[in-house]
Amino acid sequence: SGFVLVKNPHLDLMEEDVLYHLDLGTKTHNLPAMFGDIKFVCVGGSPRRMRAFAQFMQRELGLAGAGEDVADVCAGSDRYAMYRAGPVLSVSHGMGIPSISIMLHELIKLLHHAKCRDVTIIRIGTSGGLGIEAGSVVITDTAVDSSFQPRFEQVVLDDVVVRSTELDKDLAEELLACSRDIPDFPTLIGHTMCTYDFYEGQGRLDGALCSFSSEKKLEYLRRAYEAGVRNIEMESTAFAALCGLCGLKGESCSFHLL
Amino acid sequence: SGFVLVKNPHLDLMEEDVLYHLDLGTKTHNLPAMFGDIKFVCVGGSPRRMRAFAQFMQRELGLAGAGEDVADVCAGSDRYAMYRAGPVLSVSHGMGIPSISIMLHELIKLLHHAKCRDVTIIRIGTSGGLGIEAGSVVITDTAVDSSFQPRFEQVVLDDVVVRSTELDKDLAEELLACSRDIPDFPTLIGHTMCTYDFYEGQGRLDGALCSFSSEKKLEYLRRAYEAGVRNIEMESTAFAALCGLCGLKGESCSFHLL
Repeated sequence: SGFVLVKNPHLDLMEEDVLYHLDLGTKTHNLPAMFGDIKFVCVGGSPRRMRAFAQFMQRELGLAGAGEDVADVCAGSDRYAMYRAGPVLSVSHGMGIPSISIMLHELIKLLHHAKCRDVTIIRIGTSGGLGIEAGSVVITDTAVDSSFQPRFEQVVLDDVVVRSTELDKDLAEELLACSRDIPDFPTLIGHTMCTYDFYEGQGRLDGALCSFSSEKKLEYLRRAYEAGVRNIEMESTAFAALCGLCGLKGESCSFHLL
Repeated sequence: SGFVLVKNPHLDLMEEDVLYHLDLGTKTHNLPAMFGDIKFVCVGGSPRRMRAFAQFMQRELGLAGAGEDVADVCAGSDRYAMYRAGPVLSVSHGMGIPSISIMLHELIKLLHHAKCRDVTIIRIGTSGGLGIEAGSVVITDTAVDSSFQPRFEQVVLDDVVVRSTELDKDLAEELLACSRDIPDFPTLIGHTMCTYDFYEGQGRLDGALCSFSSEKKLEYLRRAYEAGVRNIEMESTAFAALCGLCGLKGESCSFHLL
């Protein structure tokens, strides 16, 4: 049917659903009227960047109001920012798996309540590249954890549930084809490693704590590269797992910042 | 000596330390002049709330400029917000362990570079309470994970390192004594459980996914209560582990929001 799925039998029994961190709700907002025509959702860590992206989409799509400021749909909350540009929703998710998970739970319910169909969701974030040119974009085929395994371990109460982190391969190929139309835009498909920590977890030597040598760091990153990892960020496994379970066609493209 | 410690031999060899997510650095800013007199750091998830807290501290301390707006020291970055009120620094950390960890690594280096001494750090966040009155403040004696264990599992490259999550017991008692001076301000000392997930990890029945029954949820929360847990949030184990390792006198006080 193309609808966005929620997998929670309790939701049907609730009189009202408050999407707390988005400052939206089923009784306070007409979600089908506000969001029913959304076809694309782009998410990224930084609120300012997601506003700039919405403004860029307004210009690209030739929408009325292009060039003007865009309003934050979630202005009542300072946890996330959300902007609309025609059929495109641009949402910030903060940094790390817990932060993106809260946003995705509420976004998925929003798209479900709004009766959106055939929605494509793309994470457009920043990342650290591995053996690739600075400025490259990595389109993720599979998100892997810090042991290079294609899995997301979700703690449900005190049980650990293992979820798949595959992303939409057709969409990845489609995005790669788009990139070929743009000159000097290095783009590749590869695995993306997702860690819980930026400093000690990604082999950085400049955190407040660092217990490993430069050699040990390089040896770890070399093993990651050999396992197919081309970039490292902090959200892709949870993103892939949640989108996959809820019927969203999902992709993660990360820009190798430095 | 009371200085804030960094445990990273590589830092001494670096010509410049860029605190990237705070938009500060050792070459671009005179950190000792800007922050050398800081004695208290208060951190919390929401940037708006941390601004309001800095304004409140300005009034409480009778500082010049009280009642006026406060400037965001990290205005160049939209990852975190930071405000000063005399010897008090008020910093936001976003939601979840990965987000607070990035901020704490850079904050600890900031306090170290600024040669601050005898710094007390307090997390003043929101939380869900367990068997306590709404509006209560829980002062954490020990942060525990989702299995009620007083530990933080930090992934360093692909090794798991287990760290202690004890907080400063004297400071906890001092804060409890302060609360007694304020009428109708229910405050208690207890364990705080820290999870990686807000919906499935904290037994919420209203996420996009929910695979457990109301009974299973209550049984888990009952076990948590019996283990001494009085509230649940998403940052305290990493906060306790990092502060403990770096010689910061740390406490976590969370307000039970609902």
